[in-house]
Amino acid sequence: MDSSAAEQRAMRRALELARTPGVPLGPNPRVGCVLLDDDGRTVAEGYHRGAGTPHAEAAALAEAGELARGTTAVVTLEPCHHTGRTGPCTEALVGAGVRRVVFAQPDPNPVAAGGERALREAGLEVSSGLLERESRALNRAWTFALEHGRPFVTWKLATTLDGRSAAADGTSRWISSRPARRDTHRLRAECDVVLAGTGTVAVDDPALTVRDVEDQPLPHQPLRAVMGLRDLAPDRRVLDDQAETVLLATHDPAEALARLHDLGRRHVFLEGGPTLAAAFVRAGLVDEVVAYVAPLLLGAGTPAVGDLGITTIASALHLRVTDVAVLADPADETNVRLTLAPTHDPHEERD
Amino acid sequence: MDSSAAEQRAMRRALELARTPGVPLGPNPRVGCVLLDDDGRTVAEGYHRGAGTPHAEAAALAEAGELARGTTAVVTLEPCHHTGRTGPCTEALVGAGVRRVVFAQPDPNPVAAGGERALREAGLEVSSGLLERESRALNRAWTFALEHGRPFVTWKLATTLDGRSAAADGTSRWISSRPARRDTHRLRAECDVVLAGTGTVAVDDPALTVRDVEDQPLPHQPLRAVMGLRDLAPDRRVLDDQAETVLLATHDPAEALARLHDLGRRHVFLEGGPTLAAAFVRAGLVDEVVAYVAPLLLGAGTPAVGDLGITTIASALHLRVTDVAVLADPADETNVRLTLAPTHDPHEERD
Repeated sequence: MDSSAAEQRAMRRALELARTPGVPLGPNPRVGCVLLDDDGRTVAEGYHRGAGTPHAEAAALAEAGELARGTTAVVTLEPCHHTGRTGPCTEALVGAGVRRVVFAQPDPNPVAAGGERALREAGLEVSSGLLERESRALNRAWTFALEHGRPFVTWKLATTLDGRSAAADGTSRWISSRPARRDTHRLRAECDVVLAGTGTVAVDDPALTVRDVEDQPLPHQPLRAVMGLRDLAPDRRVLDDQAETVLLATHDPAEALARLHDLGRRHVFLEGGPTLAAAFVRAGLVDEVVAYVAPLLLGAGTPAVGDLGITTIASALHLRVTDVAVLADPADETNVRLTLAPTHDPHEERD
Repeated sequence: MDSSAAEQRAMRRALELARTPGVPLGPNPRVGCVLLDDDGRTVAEGYHRGAGTPHAEAAALAEAGELARGTTAVVTLEPCHHTGRTGPCTEALVGAGVRRVVFAQPDPNPVAAGGERALREAGLEVSSGLLERESRALNRAWTFALEHGRPFVTWKLATTLDGRSAAADGTSRWISSRPARRDTHRLRAECDVVLAGTGTVAVDDPALTVRDVEDQPLPHQPLRAVMGLRDLAPDRRVLDDQAETVLLATHDPAEALARLHDLGRRHVFLEGGPTLAAAFVRAGLVDEVVAYVAPLLLGAGTPAVGDLGITTIASALHLRVTDVAVLADPADETNVRLTLAPTHDPHEERD
């Protein structure tokens, strides 16, 4: 890495641009780009606003016009080298006379990769890896999906402190507090699929939409996916026109994820029920757990987590706590949100 | 309240003295005292070091000697007005010629109370209530016990994220991580009784002592209390000579607490098992819950919380989260510690 202080500042700015709230809508990664002149001054900026709109580099080049000539393009992701809904960014950068390209994260997309080589072959200076970790974090699910060939799966779980999702008579009020429900909508909005089982849809009839604090659906909705072999009654809310819905007639999590991947989906928010979630856990296809823990004790009732086929502690699913937050609301229960990632059994080699 | 800035500073210092680690050992409250001259300068300081040693006021007066005359005594608790193992502090303050007394918390002990009146009758100026909340917090369990006529009960619970205390085959390793076990010893040391049921003692044979990081017992140990009607085999560790042990041959939590209160005990650390804990919860005799949540999922196994007789969500035990901490250890599992207090059902009056 041989980046100047100006390039580092520009990369931070590019990351900030990429993080612009509300974009991108769709399967594309968040990308930001800053063009610098020889003195390290910003000539133009751009970011990607979602599928079908110009890439970040193209947006910055358009803003710069003739001033792009001789600049350094600082961009959060390796410029693409394929013609999709827009032309290759490599050609656009070369064509505009950009002299040097500094990018953070290599493109994990086998279709779009090769940008670095193409740029070098066209005679540009290229430097990579500056703030790569930050760029990967920004497009965590997208990067994961391209590297693993399947969507990233976040499993949302709501439980009492003693592991119950409902009392013995089926009542479950307060187990998801108002702040937890709001937080759930925020997380749904960050995903591109909300997944539930046919059983949950039959019994609970959830809308599976992203709604605002007034309970109104947002204009952009993730895909709703309903998985399983039960028939759905036509009056189910998940079949309304507030969002697209896909039916995945399988019990196999890998098959369901393959189908969603083919649909260009990168981040699945798995909501229920416990049997479906248990199938994903058993298949090793849960990449993140978001657990809302309600400060309630029931001592009996429906277990929040279904049978995982685990009978001894050495086989337990070990998780790593990545975040703890207290979701408080003066007018409602507080929930504690734990975010966790599965670990690859760290105990096997220990005494 | 008509306290000067100097008195406020002195009260903070008195609280600090009262908090001196390791004292008091025994049933007495933590108390600190600072003597100020007319210019607000410290003449002497004292704090109570435990049952049978001088009260904080006496310690400060002894340090001051003749210089106590005309001073203001700033003390975290209302000076006592009875002759216990030491003489009444009121008399000592009057006898030493103290002019004014500022105290934080009124004495909740009906036997020792009356200090304020006695001081006024002897012609001293008295002011009360300065930093009272802080002083109450310092002697939380002691204050509770005197106000309620029974010890404060902290219930310690260890659970997986899905509410299990052991796998189906009874194994439970990692559910209490090393940092959680260390933290448990720290909390035990803050209590004056460690309570378990005869069933737990029969099956798990816990020592119920406070041990240091090298697993060595500390010199001062809380009382060990074993409750229930099962006979104990004489080889049980709880019957060794590392600490005192009392047997409470009852299934009634109120009866057990009354007995411990009569023994001068103010803070019970309730450790297990689930049936005993459930009896305390059902009786409304749990005042604090400390839950160590292990980031493990089992999907089956022994429930961490026994049957509470609750069948519908409206009857759930509602708790308030008072603290959340992540207990991490690079070489072991992380646990999340939730500290909670029961609430008096806040939902009954709502829609």
